[in-house]
Amino acid sequence: MKVEIISIGDELLIGQTVNTNASWMGERLLDINCPVQWITTIGDEKDHLLNALAIAEERAETVLITGGLGPTHDDITKKVVCQYFDSNLVEDKDVLKSIKERFAKRNVEMARVNEEQAMVPEDAEILDNDEGTAPGFLFKKEGKRFFILPGVPQEMKSMMLRHVLPGLEEILSTGVVKNRILCTTGIPESTLYSKLDDLEDLEKDAKLAFLPNYLGVRIRITAVADDKEQAKQKLDAVEKRIRDKVDRYIYADRDILLEEALHDLLIDKDLTVAVAESCTGGLIADKLTNVSGSSKYFDRGVVSYSNGSKQDNLGVSEALLQKHGAVSEPVAAAMAEGVRELSDTDFGISTTGIAGPTGGSREKPVGLVYIAIADEQGTRVEKHIFPNDRRGNKVRAAQAALDILRRRIKGLL
Amino acid sequence: MKVEIISIGDELLIGQTVNTNASWMGERLLDINCPVQWITTIGDEKDHLLNALAIAEERAETVLITGGLGPTHDDITKKVVCQYFDSNLVEDKDVLKSIKERFAKRNVEMARVNEEQAMVPEDAEILDNDEGTAPGFLFKKEGKRFFILPGVPQEMKSMMLRHVLPGLEEILSTGVVKNRILCTTGIPESTLYSKLDDLEDLEKDAKLAFLPNYLGVRIRITAVADDKEQAKQKLDAVEKRIRDKVDRYIYADRDILLEEALHDLLIDKDLTVAVAESCTGGLIADKLTNVSGSSKYFDRGVVSYSNGSKQDNLGVSEALLQKHGAVSEPVAAAMAEGVRELSDTDFGISTTGIAGPTGGSREKPVGLVYIAIADEQGTRVEKHIFPNDRRGNKVRAAQAALDILRRRIKGLL
Repeated sequence: MKVEIISIGDELLIGQTVNTNASWMGERLLDINCPVQWITTIGDEKDHLLNALAIAEERAETVLITGGLGPTHDDITKKVVCQYFDSNLVEDKDVLKSIKERFAKRNVEMARVNEEQAMVPEDAEILDNDEGTAPGFLFKKEGKRFFILPGVPQEMKSMMLRHVLPGLEEILSTGVVKNRILCTTGIPESTLYSKLDDLEDLEKDAKLAFLPNYLGVRIRITAVADDKEQAKQKLDAVEKRIRDKVDRYIYADRDILLEEALHDLLIDKDLTVAVAESCTGGLIADKLTNVSGSSKYFDRGVVSYSNGSKQDNLGVSEALLQKHGAVSEPVAAAMAEGVRELSDTDFGISTTGIAGPTGGSREKPVGLVYIAIADEQGTRVEKHIFPNDRRGNKVRAAQAALDILRRRIKGLL
Repeated sequence: MKVEIISIGDELLIGQTVNTNASWMGERLLDINCPVQWITTIGDEKDHLLNALAIAEERAETVLITGGLGPTHDDITKKVVCQYFDSNLVEDKDVLKSIKERFAKRNVEMARVNEEQAMVPEDAEILDNDEGTAPGFLFKKEGKRFFILPGVPQEMKSMMLRHVLPGLEEILSTGVVKNRILCTTGIPESTLYSKLDDLEDLEKDAKLAFLPNYLGVRIRITAVADDKEQAKQKLDAVEKRIRDKVDRYIYADRDILLEEALHDLLIDKDLTVAVAESCTGGLIADKLTNVSGSSKYFDRGVVSYSNGSKQDNLGVSEALLQKHGAVSEPVAAAMAEGVRELSDTDFGISTTGIAGPTGGSREKPVGLVYIAIADEQGTRVEKHIFPNDRRGNKVRAAQAALDILRRRIKGLL
């Protein structure tokens, strides 16, 4: 099925808003094995929309239009689409009722302009909006479908998930499509490829895609089958074969962050952690505390940027700092041990390094980071050299520090 | 001038990459008063590109095409564009030389496939690439311009800044266009509007745009004039009139983050700071340490998530915690004073609050955050209630904490 997205909004053309709606839709459509062929972005202008609709009707079978459904004067989508399909606007009692209820629930007086949102095209199917006041619409013409959706991300997403994707899946009837994401970290994409040396054979049962970023490589597995059970079996089989080779790098079988996986691990085993950060500058603590409920296992963080702080807050001795320098294996170990002892947690983790772009030397180049973990069994230190800019090095070092904790808990270190 | 962007790449259609290139280009083109009308995104497919070129040629005067110029087999842009313009590929000695030099400099052997990048369309102007190996091209046809640019962001940006924008500015000859960004924080967009009550009058001399996000509202001023000096005078006059009304909220007259503005302020006045964070969880320290050179003024951070940590690391008394609770004005003050005293810095700043989504109560709702600053003159505490999700509340609280420091240094608090 040929699919086009038409994104409407001046803010998208002038760079004020990045078109993340289209990306999200593209990803969800790929999930049901229905990749998008065209994304057309235009401003809030009648002639441009009429023209874009004509082009899309000629080349695509399903067209998804987002934006310009709000109640203000520059929201022209509904009127222009009605003109295109030669359809009249009529008041819909049910829609009006649901808009009124929404305002009543929030105890907000409904503006006159919102009543206008109950005017719907008489030839369209109404797609109800459970996140806002603007309903969506589905026009059908000569076997082609035109979905008109709001531009507010949460409203668009809800409508996609409840109305658009299930409808398209039914039409596609190519069988059941199921996806699974395996999140890996600590292994470069090229190494992953070479370890999975039977990729071609693996792909007989399912399609694989590798999605790398600074945090790791996500493996997306897509299986098509006659029914759900069979699709699940295919995914399970492929996952098992991948795990046979690279299991130690996989931290989740769904699309979550490492700190979210750690939440479950730490809660599950009733363990606690404290962090001593130098070059990561608070990023590890920030990531851990982004997860709701982290106060159950995260006790404290110390961002010991100065040597004084390494002594005061972590008990690292001045002699050790003078002998090895702040960026060194012994200091990393002493930081992890210090924060663990002072906070009385199960684990202490630490980072010390040179984030850059300045401060490097021949022996200690920019990107050098020591990462340590201390627990009752002892202390381990790992040495990394990251090749990125200051922020990139911080992000990668923080991820590596979270991963040393995961591997320690899992008995992989 | 009517402008269209054509973005090429399968990864853009399936949501693997968000189209930030088009946003950046849209913003830069607006800078020269030349807003983009269409953005068309297609995959690496010959027929779709030929079709997109035909559509763009019909409706636009300047077309900017990015992506698909690399050396691998799915990079089809150069060949397809040549077919469209009926142009042959010929080897360009200068381009070949510069590619060879680039490899030699990096001490990397040049692959055979890279030689192919020296093949250029005989009817196009060459746009040299100082960030990579793929040159760009400019085709002219019946008064219309087609710029072919690489998709790698840093290569595209450099080529835009060096070749495309200066060329277009010359053609536009609408005079000189100059922009200035005033960064504000701590004032909602609606309040900014009402304080700038002579907006219509202001806009006689320059166009204003308000760009809000969680960190604040950026005001973009655009002036068009006959020459640079006159444009600068217009910008200065408008900036002065804005400052007359909202100066205290403006932290920079260029597009930088608050932590970057603080870098200059702290260095300039030779001041130091330490941070005690509860609900912001390390984010303030992370932001401060994102700026290279921050070790000169940032001494340490304590992420005191547990009450134990507030006592051990900050000297907050158990009695105070029991009497008022961790989320309270007195505890915020004690945290800021504690971290300042222990680190012997000029300033101590602190946050304590409820980031959510759980943990709120009737008296202390989700979003409640106390922010304190301590210095030799004493301690000030501010109370905020943020309406966002967990991450949003963290981001806004961290920004407010950085701003309390700015205002204190500036004598505004």
